[in-house]
Amino acid sequence: MANSAVMLGIDIGGTTTSFGFVRQDGTCLAHKTIATQGTDPAERLVARVTGEARQLQQTISPQVTLLGIGIGAPNGNYYTGLITDPPNLAWGPVVNLKVLFQNHLALPTVLTNDANAAALGELLYGAGKGLRHFIAITLGTGLGSGIIVNGALLYGADGFAGELGHTVVDPAGRQCSCGKRGCLETYVSAHGLCRTVYALLADRTAASGLRTVPYQQLTARAVHEAALAGDPIAREAFYLTGKTLGVKLADAAAITNPEAFIVSGGLAAAGDLLLDPARQAMEENLLGIFRGKVNILQSLLPRGLSAILGAAALAWSEHGTCRQA
Amino acid sequence: MANSAVMLGIDIGGTTTSFGFVRQDGTCLAHKTIATQGTDPAERLVARVTGEARQLQQTISPQVTLLGIGIGAPNGNYYTGLITDPPNLAWGPVVNLKVLFQNHLALPTVLTNDANAAALGELLYGAGKGLRHFIAITLGTGLGSGIIVNGALLYGADGFAGELGHTVVDPAGRQCSCGKRGCLETYVSAHGLCRTVYALLADRTAASGLRTVPYQQLTARAVHEAALAGDPIAREAFYLTGKTLGVKLADAAAITNPEAFIVSGGLAAAGDLLLDPARQAMEENLLGIFRGKVNILQSLLPRGLSAILGAAALAWSEHGTCRQA
Repeated sequence: MANSAVMLGIDIGGTTTSFGFVRQDGTCLAHKTIATQGTDPAERLVARVTGEARQLQQTISPQVTLLGIGIGAPNGNYYTGLITDPPNLAWGPVVNLKVLFQNHLALPTVLTNDANAAALGELLYGAGKGLRHFIAITLGTGLGSGIIVNGALLYGADGFAGELGHTVVDPAGRQCSCGKRGCLETYVSAHGLCRTVYALLADRTAASGLRTVPYQQLTARAVHEAALAGDPIAREAFYLTGKTLGVKLADAAAITNPEAFIVSGGLAAAGDLLLDPARQAMEENLLGIFRGKVNILQSLLPRGLSAILGAAALAWSEHGTCRQA
Repeated sequence: MANSAVMLGIDIGGTTTSFGFVRQDGTCLAHKTIATQGTDPAERLVARVTGEARQLQQTISPQVTLLGIGIGAPNGNYYTGLITDPPNLAWGPVVNLKVLFQNHLALPTVLTNDANAAALGELLYGAGKGLRHFIAITLGTGLGSGIIVNGALLYGADGFAGELGHTVVDPAGRQCSCGKRGCLETYVSAHGLCRTVYALLADRTAASGLRTVPYQQLTARAVHEAALAGDPIAREAFYLTGKTLGVKLADAAAITNPEAFIVSGGLAAAGDLLLDPARQAMEENLLGIFRGKVNILQSLLPRGLSAILGAAALAWSEHGTCRQA
């Protein structure tokens, strides 16, 4: 039955929620994206997702067996099934998402945060296939990370391991939305890149097309395009962003000794503009025994499906083997 | 046979080598310390240790069964059994210490670095009993660390996980003996504390008894005594050392989400002089979800036996259960 068995992978974001039916080999048989409508209560989203998923399941072979559900969501906790203070969602302080889904679909359900799901997606279907020790880094509005150790996710004491985005670049540095100062994600993320552009516009005298763009309208994509066109401020912003990333990757490598880092998300699309200075700074700050051994790889998951594949990978890695006849 | 079974725990240092016979409950039945004589080849030390251990075994009950050997040594690698570039030992670039010992004693033998052995010692017999996730920090001449995840050591891809001493405080900071700049151990270690005292003597105008001590004669113990006597430079040096430690512990906590850090070694004897500023800086730099949850504990292992207990714990955790009748 291996080929007709699927998991329902669900990725919940502040704006959109995606879900799809995924076979153990990573084939996504059908998928859909709906608006999250974050001002509604969580129960409403769960009812809509499960209703839509039932309809979607009808469009694929009726012989398909749904074995379980994997959910990736910001602040999702693997141990408790809870989402605590979800960003951009008016769900209140705590929601037991696992129980809400099981009220609609009586199936094994497992929850984790989006970066952990991304790491499992890379492990089962992406650039992490065949690796036993790596760290997946998601570069979006913020910086998330999921750590694979001995071929499994590292959850830690409370299920919150992998908060690389909130390690400290400078204790007196930029204000972070978490309330601290100088967190890595205030420098290395789509928003962090834009902040660096503005700091450079203030500090440097070089001409730049970015001097005409208001702060609130600046996007990482615009900085990327400017850098490709040779804009000196944009190029320096990528260089500094990559360098800051590289120093902190060296720290993470010294702590967990991974074979690779796998980067994904919008900012990773900048490729070597970001990753070349990251590689250089990482190597310079690695202890000799690690030098030349730690790769920085780009994700191999298809952009639009990566979050669904990650959530499904969570379900497969948790409930897959014992259900396979 | 549980009470009559022992492991031989061996701790090899640049100056002295200690070994002892340890029961599974952590009782050390007999132990001895000899000079390492680091200018001799490794074979010579192994012959002396095994010869002395045989004699020592005669002094305890003849019914004692020796089940295996655990070795803790700087740069010892769990996966390979090799010691690479051991500091202060003229052993050449690589020595297969595991094979050398097995040539003398045909028993299961396992090797790791001294900080990993310390972590296992805390887990089985010390402040880590009952914990599943913690990081042991050894504060001696340098700063070593061993990471316990899910109740087991984290080795990583090459067996080198836990090099917290070489994470980066400042990429342009102090020269480290590893060839890099700004490593944590150049600030937080016995030697790092002395370097901070000298930097403060240069920067501050305060009177201090430490102004009469030549650089090469300054010891962490002297700084500790000066701090207890109220010396302002010594007190500020401890404060800055603790603060730097705390910021990097917050980083390590964000990555691996431990329940506690357990500190040991000469510098840890300074207690709250070091650990109070460390706790404060760690809390300030922890993400909200971790605050108030991560303890900084002092080792509970007896100072003179801790390295032997750690090495024996390595052997017990590796070969203990399957040998217990």
